[in-house]
Parts: sequence; C-alpha cells; structure tokens
Amino acid sequence: MNDFEVIARKGKEAAFRLNLLTIDKKNSFLNRLVVLLRSNAKNILGANKLDIEKAKEYRLSNALIDRLSLTEERIESMAKGVEQIAKLPDPTGKILDEYLRGDGLLIKKVSVPIGLVGIFYESRPNVTIDCAVLCLKSGNACLLKGGKEAHYSNKALIVLIKKALEEEGIDPHAIQLVSTSDRNELKALLRCNDFIDCIIPRGGEGLIKFISENTSIPVVKHYKGVCNIYVDAEADINMAQSILINAKCQRPGVCNAVENLILDKALGQSKINSILEVIYKQGVELRVDASLDAMLVGAKISTRVAHEDDFYQEYLAPILAVCCVDGLEGAINAINKYGSGHSEAIITSNQQTAEKFLKAIDAAAVYWNASTRFTDGYEFGLGAEIGISTDRIHARGPMGINELCTYKYLIWGQGHTR
Amino acid sequence: MNDFEVIARKGKEAAFRLNLLTIDKKNSFLNRLVVLLRSNAKNILGANKLDIEKAKEYRLSNALIDRLSLTEERIESMAKGVEQIAKLPDPTGKILDEYLRGDGLLIKKVSVPIGLVGIFYESRPNVTIDCAVLCLKSGNACLLKGGKEAHYSNKALIVLIKKALEEEGIDPHAIQLVSTSDRNELKALLRCNDFIDCIIPRGGEGLIKFISENTSIPVVKHYKGVCNIYVDAEADINMAQSILINAKCQRPGVCNAVENLILDKALGQSKINSILEVIYKQGVELRVDASLDAMLVGAKISTRVAHEDDFYQEYLAPILAVCCVDGLEGAINAINKYGSGHSEAIITSNQQTAEKFLKAIDAAAVYWNASTRFTDGYEFGLGAEIGISTDRIHARGPMGINELCTYKYLIWGQGHTR
Repeated sequence: MNDFEVIARKGKEAAFRLNLLTIDKKNSFLNRLVVLLRSNAKNILGANKLDIEKAKEYRLSNALIDRLSLTEERIESMAKGVEQIAKLPDPTGKILDEYLRGDGLLIKKVSVPIGLVGIFYESRPNVTIDCAVLCLKSGNACLLKGGKEAHYSNKALIVLIKKALEEEGIDPHAIQLVSTSDRNELKALLRCNDFIDCIIPRGGEGLIKFISENTSIPVVKHYKGVCNIYVDAEADINMAQSILINAKCQRPGVCNAVENLILDKALGQSKINSILEVIYKQGVELRVDASLDAMLVGAKISTRVAHEDDFYQEYLAPILAVCCVDGLEGAINAINKYGSGHSEAIITSNQQTAEKFLKAIDAAAVYWNASTRFTDGYEFGLGAEIGISTDRIHARGPMGINELCTYKYLIWGQGHTR
Repeated sequence: MNDFEVIARKGKEAAFRLNLLTIDKKNSFLNRLVVLLRSNAKNILGANKLDIEKAKEYRLSNALIDRLSLTEERIESMAKGVEQIAKLPDPTGKILDEYLRGDGLLIKKVSVPIGLVGIFYESRPNVTIDCAVLCLKSGNACLLKGGKEAHYSNKALIVLIKKALEEEGIDPHAIQLVSTSDRNELKALLRCNDFIDCIIPRGGEGLIKFISENTSIPVVKHYKGVCNIYVDAEADINMAQSILINAKCQRPGVCNAVENLILDKALGQSKINSILEVIYKQGVELRVDASLDAMLVGAKISTRVAHEDDFYQEYLAPILAVCCVDGLEGAINAINKYGSGHSEAIITSNQQTAEKFLKAIDAAAVYWNASTRFTDGYEFGLGAEIGISTDRIHARGPMGINELCTYKYLIWGQGHTR
C-alpha cells in the first residue's frame, strides 16, 4: 500500500463511521468550527499572507491574487456560511420512495451519503471550508486537494477542522487535506478505486482533463460555463438589453456569466445595432462573426472579427462573441453546439417559441426572459453549493448537500422468499 | 473523424430529435415492434440457429448456449415485455421539484433523457430488445454493443428495430448496433466523449474493467453480485433456512443469488449444524473458513476449506462460502468488506439489531428477514430494468426508465436580473 492508499483507506473507514453519526453531532461539529474560525482569524490571515507573498514572487495575476486573499470580512463570511449549513435539514435518511407489495414486503428508497468524496479545486481558500462542511453535513468523508498557491492558508484551515473533529470525538480522517501537487502522486490517488467513491473536480480544462483521463472512479465534472443568450425577433429590446448587461457585466469572472450572444436575423439592423451599442458602452469587447459584421452598417461600435473558436471560449472577462442565426432552429443548434451545458437563455415575448427553446436546449439551466446569473445553489433555494455540475449523470447544475447523497433500498420482510 | 465518431455523432443528433418526440409516438414505435417481433419469429429463430451452431463449434458451455438460445416462447416473452414497457408512463417531463422565489422567478426541476447511452453487454439476445426499448421509451438514443456470440440473432433483431423506426418516421440512428468486438475499435468508440453521454456495461469483470480503464465518459457499472446473508443469534432458524435455500438454490446463476453465509458465533454448534445441513442437502458445496470448521463437530455434511479469496467470488453456482463472526459488528465489517454493494440480508427477530444492520450496510439493497432474490426492477415495482447498478453515483440497484433520465432546471422570468 502506498501513502495515498493509506490515506484513502482511512478516509473510507471514517465514511462508514460518519454514516452512523446523528445530525446533532454533525451540527455540533459545524458550530464548533464557526467558533474556531472566528477566534483564529489572525492565524489564518498570517498564513494567508505567506501565500500572497509567494504569489507575488511568482508574479501570479492580480485577479488570482485577489481570489486568494483573505480579509477579516472574508473569514467572517466563511464562518457565517458554516452557520447557515448547520441550520439546513439532514439530507440523509429521507424516504424518497416507498412501495408496499401485495405480499407484505415493504421497500423504501432512502437517501444516504455517497461515502468518501475526493474534491480537487484551485486557489480560493474558502472552498476548503465549504467543501469540508458540505461533505460532513451530508455524512460524507472527504479528501480535499486544494491548489498549491493556497498551501499555507489551507494548512491553517485544516488545523482548525481537525481540532473541531477532535473536540467532537469524530474520526480525524473524516476530512483530510492532500497537499501534494505532484502529478504522479495524484495519479496514485486517482487509482484508489477501492476506497474513493466519487471525485468532484472544480476548475479549469487542464485539471478536469487530467482527472478524467487518469481515473476510473466516477467523476462529477464542474467544468466551464460557456453560457449563451438568444435574442429572438419577438423580444422586448429593453428587457434584452438589461438582461445582457446583467449577465455579461455584473460579474464577468464567474461561470454563469454570458459569453455568447445569438441574435435572430429577423430582429433587423436597427434593433441589432441598438442591442450591441448598449453592451459596447459598458466597455465590452465585441467579437462579431462575418455574416453579422456585414449587417452592422451605422452602428456606433467597433468590433473584432469572431472566429469559430471564439464561440467555444469561456472568457471570464468583458468580451462577448456575437453571431446571427435564422430564428429559433438556428439558435438551438448553435447553443447545443457551442454551450458547455451550463446556463442558456432566450429573450422573447412569444410563449410558444420560449417553450420550444426550454425543451430543446441541452443544459443544466435553461432560462426564459431572465439572466443566466441566477444559476447558483443559493439563488435556486438549495442552500450552499459545492459547485455547479456540467455533467449529466448524478447531479446537474448547482450541487448542494442533497446532491452529495445517493440512495439505497431498505426492505422489510417476514421471511419472504421468491 | 473515424467510423465510430460518425456513428456516435449520428446517435447524438438522433438523441436531440428523440427528446422532442411525443409519448404517443414513442409508444407507437414500441407497439409496432411488438407486431414485427411476432410476425418475424421464424427469421429470428433461423438467425439464432446460426449463433448456436457456431457456439457449439467453439465449444461454449451449455449454460452459455442455453442463455443464447431463443425459442418461440422466448420471442413471445420479448414481445410481451415490449408491450408492458409501452404501458408505462412517460419518465420524461416530470416536475421533480419547484421553487417560486419572492421576486416571481419560477424554477422547476424537470426530468429529461440522458442523451446518447452506450450499452455494452454479453450473450443473451433479448437484452438487445430490452435495452433498445427502455432507451427509446425514456427518450434516449442508444449504441448497443452486444456479444459476438449473439451476432446473427442481434442482426436479425436490429433489422426489425430499424423497420419499426422507419415506419414511425423516427431517426434510424436512434438505435444503433455496433458489431465489432475488436478491442482497438472499441477503444475508439470509448473516446467519443463529445457524443456519448453515458456508458452502461453489463457483464463480467473483464468487460467492466476494460471499459472503465479506457474511457472518460461517465460509466454506470452493472457489476457482479457478491451477496451476503447474515444469520444473527436471535434469528428464527426455520426462517433462516427457507430464506437461504431460496437465495442460494432457486436460481444460482443470477446476480441476486447469495454467495456468502455469515453466521453469528453465538448461534452455537447445534443451530449452526442444522442450518448447514439443510443447505448441504440441497446439493450445495460448502466452503467453510478455518475457525468455523473447528466448530462443526457432528454435522452431517462434508465441507471444503474456504480461503479469503472465496468470499470475494461470485460463484453463480451451487457453492456457498461460510464464515463465523462475533455478532453484528463482525457481520457488518465482513459484508462491507466482501460484498460488491449489490444485495445483503440479515435474519434476526431483534428489531434493534436489524435497524443497525440496515443503516450500516453499504449496498444497493439491504434486507431484513427476506431473500436477496427480490432485487429486481419488476419485483421493486419499477417495471422492466436495464440491469442492476452496483455503482453509487446516479443510479443504484435496479435501473429502469426513470434511472435512464437526468434532469434540467427550467426558469421562467419576466426580465429578471441579479
């Protein structure tokens, strides 16, 4: 057994024990962690400072340094997040279905934890706390593999987590931090099929690809958001403009921000111009495909030419790729082709057109006359989320404590045979 | 693009179209297939004869030849199965959850088909029909990769399927049979991530391992059933005997048959002897671990010594591995260690003991005082099944038309922004 097999085996054993904990015990742990986060804010900030210094030394981008940085406010917001998760109902032990047979055999489908969950993520240290508490609340043990840029911050946080586990008498292997970033070592971890039940990668294309190609453990991918908005000929143009500005500009760096704008040719030159002018005024770079470009006579904007590749990109920046299609069919084909299965929207006042769009689009969240920015566990009323799944299997869209569960069938007999 | 990418792309395009079919259209296809199966029974039997001849030539086992063989009755039972699936309600378009926000944004979680499903299976030709119709009923396109030993039978069946698709005006690529068994060609198929949404392997260890290790497409494994029965000190011995005989002898070749018997030491010599004598009389070979062997003084049975490996085996034959444990804790540890996560049972009259067992055992189906043989889609009231998942993710236990679905969120706004 290599080191990672030992870590994974201990995690799986902890998962068996976690499955037997009461909800009160799980919540006690969460509340204790809240206290420790607040009373150790200075230690955490000190550790975080070391990460920031290193990040500057390695000349990481300002955006990345900002995501990495903790402040007293951010630590308080972590603590508040944990408090909220403590208030959520227990996602395990729920009766999802029940069937009493004519012969008296009683069959219940009951929610249970998945087991041992491996979570691979990058940069932001608050993800360490979010993942640890969402897993524990749902009765799952977890292996957390954070980014190396958050090394010291994550170490400071895991010390508090371990302390809270110990003080509550919970198996210390219920939450383990894996600190290597060596790809060969990670491959060894990804081969621990006998112990790890599910892997959740949150991050960029490289991370997701590396994991998918090096494991046969089930993976629930939290991949990029190439979100599209289609403005139909029958759209309210003011509504289209305000939704577009919200979806593109409110927070361009998040996965539910829009990246592609699909315009119905039948909108005509003047409406198309006015939509693009409004976005352009917000400082958004417009990448326009050749056929649309020819239509933009008289628009008070400057544009760049969009290539096919541009429509597959997650910009996470004030850039919008724009193309024209021939009505609904063209929009559906374009979105099912370019989209990453995250969030897509149609703006139209025609109900029939909208219903067709909602049915035909293949994505986790499909909107009619609303911004794609709503795709979020909290906004959807699910509570906190571990991320947004772009996979189809098991969980799709925001993944909260319910999606960290699976189920089993329990069957009560009185000597029943077949 | 290689041949398999073309096949997979056409399958995915068909999936988009299938998603838009009405339930009436899907049922018309099923009912038309029923007619074709009945009116072409002779053709199917003729093709099946070629497979049987080849199987005899290659000296396949009698058990395998029996599984491969079709008769008029078996074809009629296939047709009846399709008729029953036509009567099931549409699994897609169901509202699984609904949330109306204070700001009027309406969010619905709705069941939808997975998309393009690849099913890899072995020998029995009726599986071709089962998988094709369960996928189509749930709006999924499918790629069927049957066993090469059923080559001619499957070819005869796919001709009828294609005819029914054509007569109903459904995309002929909705159901495709992949006839290669070349491992390099299959690897090419397993790399079609852009088109295949999910792979369901049903079969032996070799098949499952090959698929898991050669794809990053999500896999829902239908793996072996190493099922365990634990007889507690407080069991009704007559009940234990009748459940054991049913679980071991009624149909030893199926995945929900019991393979390991775990006995509570506290049962004592005489009860243990009487349990084993009854099973032995049924012609079951007993493989007994060393510590138990020492206790079997005076039992009218002959046994073989069981090695650790025996407890991980799916015998699919009248063989039972038997060991002794120190009460409930020992039983739980043994079953969570040896079991394949399929079906496990406890026989006891003590409710508290039973409830602990039901909670702690990590398997798709956990029974109290009933035979493991009930783990089956039809017995569980789910209708026909595509197989029994031993995975934890997405579907666990019997997988029917509902488990062939995923969900998406549909969101209705009136210009909502965040």
